[in-house]
Amino acid sequence: MDTPLELLQQRLDYRFRDPALLQRALTHRSFGSGHNERLEFLGDAVLNLTVSHLLFERFGESAEGDLTRVRAHLVREDSLHRAALQLGLPQVLRLSEGEARGGGAQRPSILADAAEAVIGAVYLDGGFDAARALVAALFGELILGTSVDAWRKDAKTELQEWLQARRHPVPEYHITATRGQAHAQIFEVECRVPALGRHAVGEGRSRRAAEQEAARQMLELLLAQG
Amino acid sequence: MDTPLELLQQRLDYRFRDPALLQRALTHRSFGSGHNERLEFLGDAVLNLTVSHLLFERFGESAEGDLTRVRAHLVREDSLHRAALQLGLPQVLRLSEGEARGGGAQRPSILADAAEAVIGAVYLDGGFDAARALVAALFGELILGTSVDAWRKDAKTELQEWLQARRHPVPEYHITATRGQAHAQIFEVECRVPALGRHAVGEGRSRRAAEQEAARQMLELLLAQG
Repeated sequence: MDTPLELLQQRLDYRFRDPALLQRALTHRSFGSGHNERLEFLGDAVLNLTVSHLLFERFGESAEGDLTRVRAHLVREDSLHRAALQLGLPQVLRLSEGEARGGGAQRPSILADAAEAVIGAVYLDGGFDAARALVAALFGELILGTSVDAWRKDAKTELQEWLQARRHPVPEYHITATRGQAHAQIFEVECRVPALGRHAVGEGRSRRAAEQEAARQMLELLLAQG
Repeated sequence: MDTPLELLQQRLDYRFRDPALLQRALTHRSFGSGHNERLEFLGDAVLNLTVSHLLFERFGESAEGDLTRVRAHLVREDSLHRAALQLGLPQVLRLSEGEARGGGAQRPSILADAAEAVIGAVYLDGGFDAARALVAALFGELILGTSVDAWRKDAKTELQEWLQARRHPVPEYHITATRGQAHAQIFEVECRVPALGRHAVGEGRSRRAAEQEAARQMLELLLAQG
């Protein structure tokens, strides 16, 4: 008879030399010591590199900024949550009784963290290539289905990535004014990058739209200065 | 006679199968096409994983939050800049004439990026283990010399890492008041985490000190709520 951990290893297409590592990857902090947070730390970095490499290969001509943006969109809680469901992690998670009663085994953040921890455990147990194969199996389809252009329009993300690539702090957004009646309000938002002494202003029919416009203006400023 | 690229490969303790990859890693965007930005994207992720693994091994008992914080302090422009100098990258960088005349080959950000690109090139050419060996050689001493406690007091960093680990946006800081005469001013700073609907206030004799205090208050708020 297949135990739950046997089944999971079949789904992972990987057999652990040290099954205790897999057990640890499935143990939430609430369960007690021997939990998965350190494995999650490692798994997050493994995932980041393997997805980066897959994107590097898939988008052979794309600029670094585009790759960074697509990666940020792929390596997120919702895709990790989906991977966790695909692996059947809710059935094998170890949680405290209280956390389990509260529906913890279905919580996207707990499942996403456990998925990262499992990736970290495979990396420790079987090395980088084993972990890379697992990530390719879990994320390959998502990567094949994505396009660089799909993410090109989000100016706030683009600005943040641009600043991070240059090791600057993130920008700040503030509403500086609103005009018009309640049903036709115009928002004015200022985007500031204090570290560079720059600010730009955008307007829009929502706070969100005004922020995007302010970010777009800021990007133009920064790109123009070279 | 040893060419500059020969010498660099000796310093890297790695010989490229495809020397064009190394050449590309040393080519700044200003030089034209075939520049190093995509390799830098990959190298950044390689560095992140290899340093994470080295820290995971070195600090066998430390919590994930401590590892994340130490990693953020190690993988920064100044340590990459130092690595670039150690490898002699200023002598082999390829820049536009204008950029070279402006001292580009000495600019920390350009050198740090090139160091990441070289790590990415070794990864592509020789695989993960070759890149891991290089990072261990470049950063091993730094990692051995560091301690988890050394970084424990920076509340702003701790708060940011805590939020990022839970996939929340970074906090915002604003001066809300200043009191006292110029030589003995007290700053009051508010720290806001809009996504969680929380704010906290700190005071201090400098903006920086007030921000740290506000971050500390916010951390206590968030940790208390579990």
